[in-house]
Amino acid sequence: MDKPLILVSNDDGITSRGIRVLVDIMKDLGDVVVVAPDSPQSGMGHAITIGNTLRLSEEELFQDVVAYKSSGTPADCVKLAKHYVLKDRKPDLVVSGINHGSNTSISVLYSGTMSAAIEGAIEGLPSIGFSLCDYSTKADFSHVEDFVKSIAEQVLYNGIPKGVALNVNFPPKRNEPIKGIKICRQARAKWQEDFDERYDPNGQKYFWMAGNFVNFDKGEDNDEWAIANNFVSVVPCQFDLTAHHAISQINNDWDWEQLKNL
Amino acid sequence: MDKPLILVSNDDGITSRGIRVLVDIMKDLGDVVVVAPDSPQSGMGHAITIGNTLRLSEEELFQDVVAYKSSGTPADCVKLAKHYVLKDRKPDLVVSGINHGSNTSISVLYSGTMSAAIEGAIEGLPSIGFSLCDYSTKADFSHVEDFVKSIAEQVLYNGIPKGVALNVNFPPKRNEPIKGIKICRQARAKWQEDFDERYDPNGQKYFWMAGNFVNFDKGEDNDEWAIANNFVSVVPCQFDLTAHHAISQINNDWDWEQLKNL
Repeated sequence: MDKPLILVSNDDGITSRGIRVLVDIMKDLGDVVVVAPDSPQSGMGHAITIGNTLRLSEEELFQDVVAYKSSGTPADCVKLAKHYVLKDRKPDLVVSGINHGSNTSISVLYSGTMSAAIEGAIEGLPSIGFSLCDYSTKADFSHVEDFVKSIAEQVLYNGIPKGVALNVNFPPKRNEPIKGIKICRQARAKWQEDFDERYDPNGQKYFWMAGNFVNFDKGEDNDEWAIANNFVSVVPCQFDLTAHHAISQINNDWDWEQLKNL
Repeated sequence: MDKPLILVSNDDGITSRGIRVLVDIMKDLGDVVVVAPDSPQSGMGHAITIGNTLRLSEEELFQDVVAYKSSGTPADCVKLAKHYVLKDRKPDLVVSGINHGSNTSISVLYSGTMSAAIEGAIEGLPSIGFSLCDYSTKADFSHVEDFVKSIAEQVLYNGIPKGVALNVNFPPKRNEPIKGIKICRQARAKWQEDFDERYDPNGQKYFWMAGNFVNFDKGEDNDEWAIANNFVSVVPCQFDLTAHHAISQINNDWDWEQLKNL
C-alpha cells in the first residue's frame, strides 16, 4: 500500500520551530509535502489574496521533504497545494501548525493556523490544526509529540465527519504530564481589546491593539476548561456558519406584512 | 427618545460607493458613525492586526457624519470603534457594506464585509453585513435601498438572536423587481481554484488566483437559490464554529485505549 500523502502548512511561517516539529512527526506517518507562508501570518483569519499576485518557490529547508514557501496567506497555501503543487495526487491528510500560541475558543476565527485546516476541510480533505498554548518562540514541544502523532493516526484511519476540521490545542509544558484528550466545544469567551495610543517621531498618532482574554464559560465541556486542567482539547469545527436555530426565530419575529410591500 | 447609534464599516474602503449608499440610508434611522478601512480589504476574512501598528484618523468624507479611516482590517475597524471611538456610547446597530460583490455561501468565510458584522456580534451588538451580487464599482444600488432600510429597522426593533450576525445578499439589478426576502441557510458550494502562472520582467514566476464558483446544493432553502431566483437572501451566521454533531461521532470512532496510554 502507498504511504499516505500529508500536506503540512502553518501560519507562523516556514522557518518557525513549530512546523519543523510537525514535519518530523509526519515523516513517520507518510510522504510529506510542505506549502507554507514565507513570513509570519498570525491573526490572518481566513484571508485570501484577491487582486494581488502570489509567489511560490521550492526550498530545501527540510530533510527528504519537498517544501514550498509562498507569499500568500495560510488559506492561499492550501489552495496552491491542492490545485497546483499536488494537483495530480490528492493529500490524505492536511495538518497545520504547530502554532506558537493558543487557538482556543473565539481565537479560531482569527487563527491562520485554523484557516489552513478549514480550507483543507472545504476541499474535502481530513484536516487538523495543532496549537501549543505557549507563545514563546522557544516553546518546549516535547510533551505533545506523541499526541500529535496519535491524533493524526486516528484521523488517517477513522476519517473525520464531512465538512469538519479539528482544532487541537495543547497545554503548555507543566510539571505534571498531560492528563489525556477531551473532545470539546468552543468556549464562550472573547478578547477585551484595549488600544494603546502612541505618537510616532513625526507626532502622528498610532495604536497597538492590546487587551485581555475574558472567559465567560462556566462549563467543563469546552476547550478553555480542558487546557486549564491540563488536557488536550479537540474541537470539531465546521465552515457552515449558518445559525440554523435562528432561521425560525427570525421568520417569526419580523414584520412580513411591511416587508412584503417593498 | 435618543436616536439609535449606528456604526458603519465595510471592506471595500471608506471611499467606495457602497459605503456612501449605506451611510445615506442609515442617516434616516439614527446617528451614524463610520469607522472603515482606508483602502480595499476584500478577501481579508477575519484577519486582525497583530504585531503591527494601527492608524486611525478622522476624515470629513460624509455630510453630517463623523467618520474615521483606519489602516486596519474590517475586524480591526469594529474593534477600534467599540473600544476607542465609541467607548462611551455603545452602538445600537453595526452595519457593514454595501459590498461590491457576492458574499453568499462559502464566501462568508473569506469576506471582510462579514468579518466586520461578525466582530459586531462577538461584541454583543446587533450586526448586519450587506452585499450586492454585482462586482462592478459602478453597480446600481437603487433597487436595494428600501430593503436595506427595512431590514435594518427590523433588526433595530426586534433584535437578533444572541451570537448571530445577518449575512444579507441582494441580487443584481434585473429587468423585474426583487421578489421578496428569504431567510436562508448557507449554500453548499465552493470556489474551484485555478492558478494562472506567469513570469515577471525579471523571469521570476508568479501566480494569479482565478477559478470558478461551483454550487453543489440542490436545495431551495439556501442563499444561492434565493439570489438566482431574484430574492434577497438573509443568512443568520454564528461565530461558534463547533460542529456539535461531530463530538459524539469522534468520541465513538477513536481508539481511546490507545490514546489513554500516551
